[in-house]
Amino acid sequence: MMDLTEITNPSFIKKLDKEQMMELAEEIRVFLIEKLSVTGGHLGPNLGVVELTIALHKLFDSPNDKFLWDVGHQAYVHKILTGRAGDFGTLRQFKGLCGFPKMIESEHDVWETGHSSTSLSAAMGMAAARDIKEETNYVIPVIGDGALTGGMALEALNHIGHKKTNMIVILNDNEMSIAPNVGALHSVLGKLRTAGKYNTAKDELEYILKKIPAIGGTIAAAAERVKDSLKYLLVSGVFFEELGFTYLGPVDGHDFTELERNIQYAKKMEGPVILHVITKKGKGYLPAEADKIGTWHGTGPYKIETGDFVKTSSVAPSWSGLVAETVRKIARNDKRVAVITPAMPVGSKLESFATEFPNRFFDVGIAEQHAATMAAGLATQGMKPFLAIYSTFLQRAYDQVLHDISRQNLNVFIGIDRAGLVGADGETHQGVFDISFLRSMPNLVIMMPKDENEGQHMVKTAIDYDCGPIAMRYPRGNGIGVPMDETLRPIPIGSWEVLREGNDAVILTFGTTIPMALEAAEILATDGIYVKVVNARFIKPLDTEMLDGMLATGMPIMTLEEAVLAGGFGSAILEYTHDSIFPTQLIRRMGIPDQFIEHGNVEALLDEIGITAGHLVENMKALIHDQVAEREKV
Amino acid sequence: MMDLTEITNPSFIKKLDKEQMMELAEEIRVFLIEKLSVTGGHLGPNLGVVELTIALHKLFDSPNDKFLWDVGHQAYVHKILTGRAGDFGTLRQFKGLCGFPKMIESEHDVWETGHSSTSLSAAMGMAAARDIKEETNYVIPVIGDGALTGGMALEALNHIGHKKTNMIVILNDNEMSIAPNVGALHSVLGKLRTAGKYNTAKDELEYILKKIPAIGGTIAAAAERVKDSLKYLLVSGVFFEELGFTYLGPVDGHDFTELERNIQYAKKMEGPVILHVITKKGKGYLPAEADKIGTWHGTGPYKIETGDFVKTSSVAPSWSGLVAETVRKIARNDKRVAVITPAMPVGSKLESFATEFPNRFFDVGIAEQHAATMAAGLATQGMKPFLAIYSTFLQRAYDQVLHDISRQNLNVFIGIDRAGLVGADGETHQGVFDISFLRSMPNLVIMMPKDENEGQHMVKTAIDYDCGPIAMRYPRGNGIGVPMDETLRPIPIGSWEVLREGNDAVILTFGTTIPMALEAAEILATDGIYVKVVNARFIKPLDTEMLDGMLATGMPIMTLEEAVLAGGFGSAILEYTHDSIFPTQLIRRMGIPDQFIEHGNVEALLDEIGITAGHLVENMKALIHDQVAEREKV
Repeated sequence: MMDLTEITNPSFIKKLDKEQMMELAEEIRVFLIEKLSVTGGHLGPNLGVVELTIALHKLFDSPNDKFLWDVGHQAYVHKILTGRAGDFGTLRQFKGLCGFPKMIESEHDVWETGHSSTSLSAAMGMAAARDIKEETNYVIPVIGDGALTGGMALEALNHIGHKKTNMIVILNDNEMSIAPNVGALHSVLGKLRTAGKYNTAKDELEYILKKIPAIGGTIAAAAERVKDSLKYLLVSGVFFEELGFTYLGPVDGHDFTELERNIQYAKKMEGPVILHVITKKGKGYLPAEADKIGTWHGTGPYKIETGDFVKTSSVAPSWSGLVAETVRKIARNDKRVAVITPAMPVGSKLESFATEFPNRFFDVGIAEQHAATMAAGLATQGMKPFLAIYSTFLQRAYDQVLHDISRQNLNVFIGIDRAGLVGADGETHQGVFDISFLRSMPNLVIMMPKDENEGQHMVKTAIDYDCGPIAMRYPRGNGIGVPMDETLRPIPIGSWEVLREGNDAVILTFGTTIPMALEAAEILATDGIYVKVVNARFIKPLDTEMLDGMLATGMPIMTLEEAVLAGGFGSAILEYTHDSIFPTQLIRRMGIPDQFIEHGNVEALLDEIGITAGHLVENMKALIHDQVAEREKV
Repeated sequence: MMDLTEITNPSFIKKLDKEQMMELAEEIRVFLIEKLSVTGGHLGPNLGVVELTIALHKLFDSPNDKFLWDVGHQAYVHKILTGRAGDFGTLRQFKGLCGFPKMIESEHDVWETGHSSTSLSAAMGMAAARDIKEETNYVIPVIGDGALTGGMALEALNHIGHKKTNMIVILNDNEMSIAPNVGALHSVLGKLRTAGKYNTAKDELEYILKKIPAIGGTIAAAAERVKDSLKYLLVSGVFFEELGFTYLGPVDGHDFTELERNIQYAKKMEGPVILHVITKKGKGYLPAEADKIGTWHGTGPYKIETGDFVKTSSVAPSWSGLVAETVRKIARNDKRVAVITPAMPVGSKLESFATEFPNRFFDVGIAEQHAATMAAGLATQGMKPFLAIYSTFLQRAYDQVLHDISRQNLNVFIGIDRAGLVGADGETHQGVFDISFLRSMPNLVIMMPKDENEGQHMVKTAIDYDCGPIAMRYPRGNGIGVPMDETLRPIPIGSWEVLREGNDAVILTFGTTIPMALEAAEILATDGIYVKVVNARFIKPLDTEMLDGMLATGMPIMTLEEAVLAGGFGSAILEYTHDSIFPTQLIRRMGIPDQFIEHGNVEALLDEIGITAGHLVENMKALIHDQVAEREKV
């Protein structure tokens, strides 16, 4: 038994024999199951790649040879083998170990990820640099079967195959990405899995051909039989070979002997190689192995013995669930409603919709661009597509929202899930850019509800809306537990709502920061400062009538948003103000500064960047003080 | 001889026999060659699809059956056949016929385009809507071999093949997209072209098998020969068949009989079909037929007899050429410099670089996402990649610039070509969103030069810069003819430049609008109004030292940009101002309002939206007047 926390670098693996590697694999599994039961994390993907990661570190020399972990949530074993086991108690926590590869943590992390399907393009860049510099290292992207359906991975395959660049692509095929996979490529892989190995097929060919003279019957019938058998030979890997790759596999990803033989073979080949490795997500932990829908892909804390998740205390509905269920309710009476998700049926809580309306539900796989433009296509035919997509992944469909949806002014309802800080997934996943990149798109309405009751009315608003695209942001996690109206009613487009009156200053905010604003107003009132709090639920268009009224009072204004400041909601207020009047009051903005926000508990992150009720109270006092000072200057 | 301008709808084609269709095709060719010699336009692509478009309109019922023209620049014949021949004198001109499909022009334009690779996703949406509504129309995307390599088209193939949705995809294969194609898919198509028809291959199989007993030799040798021959059978279309499509073709796209037979066959099939049609770009016009590099893809006016282009009067270098040549010059002494283009080697004037440094040049095909992340990969290895990309196409790589380049703070030099209004290509191609979507990305420097001399120094600045990504915007067209320094010198990051002094007001602007600002200042001076003009060549970071100085004077400020106002440069000024001081002056912004800007001459477009020296003079007078009025109020 070795102490994993004593590992400093992966060189020790080179001396291990098969038995020792199997022992190491077992120890890593026990370690992961135990550590993640406390911190949560991506258990399933990492249990699936234990042997693969050990084998890769044995047969290549990291960091001279470059491992690129696509998506990156399966890099825990790599982290353990490169000297970071001791940090797993802080996994995905504020200032703790990142859940994804991170250059600053280790020289063995040569490429950072979080979003899917980037590894092949990055590997092509690294391999091209190597060839330009006439160096000889290996470049080894490790990509899942789900990530392979992302458009940029396919673009990269096309380019790499054309250039015949030396590279060993490890296709980590666990038959599901986050949810079970969809797409024709999945069938291609399925056929490869059942077809057995290339060499086996070749043997079969010879066997069949030997039999031909004995078959009798017509030559044409023989040809048909040959064709069927040959299909295994020629189709085996032909998809990848057509693209210029050498296909090796499939290989059992939990068998060190097979892995080693095939990796050694791949290392000797010229040109790009795809090594098709079959792994089992959750391998070695029964609850995770039995998972068919992706529950164990990424988890919170759990009880090791039973696999039961540690319940969170919230009784309020999850935002994803609330939105999905409201869409489902409306869809019962509105046949125009269809739902599209890019591989997030579980995360976006769309399983019930899918079950009730299978012909109006489309899980398109990891393919955000296609998802958005398919929604546009549906809308051209009078449908009301609901595109459920995480804020961070909507970034992948920027041009499709601009060029296809907004430019054609189509009635697409974009549900921007996980808007705002998401916490443990960190800087690649924070949903904080969407306002800045969407606000400049003509025709697009952007809104965010203050609570789940307003949220359900906004879903109704969006589906009723007939003048173009409309986006509704909602955060990760649960609502705040307000009573829910029974009847849905649309909210007038561009209308804000005063939540609290006050004459000393105004806080303009929306969504998750509203409770913070109300709390600050309450505290300020105890000091005799009376602050108006406005639910600026429409980020675009602004409620210019209400805004004009507030500007006219001369009260100083603070905008507050859990989104980046550059080009955000606060900027929209400044733009409008300077276009229409000469502001006689101070207007200041609170929000996310010009930096990427790391992983950690959302509250800790907000505190770090100064977005708390306490900071807001201080800032409001300063604002009012400065305004008085400015007035006295005049 | 029929008068094409008398066509009101395509129904007349149904009655035509083959001879009459050939006559019609000939007339359309003459018409296009003549009309486009005056207006310019996408001659090559349209001459290639004359017979195909006629055949499609004969065999389908538009608009009930839906044609989706991918990219859309090949829809001229479709426009002629749907009653728009009379408008071709105004093609791509202000308020004239659009160069792309446009719903507002005709009910036969059911999908608008401009950017590549959207048709399959949109078609999937339309087909899904049809199936939900239990209707029976055909959906027919027409996509080029170049557009097929775009990631979203591949995502769509994967989804459509999986769902087995009824759809007839016309693969218009002219062996080049805009420039000659690259990529492994291109080789797949090449093999299909030379392999001949499916049926032919099947015949060959039977022939070979009949011969087997007579061959003698070992069975294994026979097996090899069978394998080679069978490859035609099984590989023919196998790439697409693996993805779930029925593959038909290749078909001669200029032969009505073949086209008609295959389209009829495709109409009878269940599930998705790819009909592989071989066409010749420029067919019927010798100069265009002889084009090997894409010169005749889209052209300005030309002399019909000789194919000579009508020369423009500018003697200044083109912006694309200036940047490309400066990069090439620096690359001679800096081995870290590599160049990536997504299918625009001609447009971005990179041929000389490619010739001189073939191993440091990468044309990745229509694959903007891959291009950006490959650049990131190169940068991780100490290279200095120059990613040359049009502003409008950079939209396709939004997430790659954010997640891969900016987040990892990699030294990628992004050359944003065609920044600002581009003119005739219209609303899908205007490069006006980039400042708004890039400005919120941490770590990224954004700059734009005032003229080509400053431009060459900025190229040097960008390649010298070692602290992260840096983007340089430059417009379509030519420089203004300034003298060029012989020695390149880097410009301090974040430094602006005062071009003209003045004490009454300030104009902050950059790039193409600088001459306009100087002209306005000159006019205002004759009225005794003295305006300071600042070359705000760094859009991010701002020159806060200079800005602080100007804010302190109390002079009113006008920002001016040929880019969208929402979240743009002017907003950056407002944000900074309100974060640091209480502005005592008026700050107003000029730029592109919240609407899509149509096609037409850039000057006409700018006049339409109020961005001219004349408007600027009026706005400056109003600004100064209002400032005085505000001061008097106090």
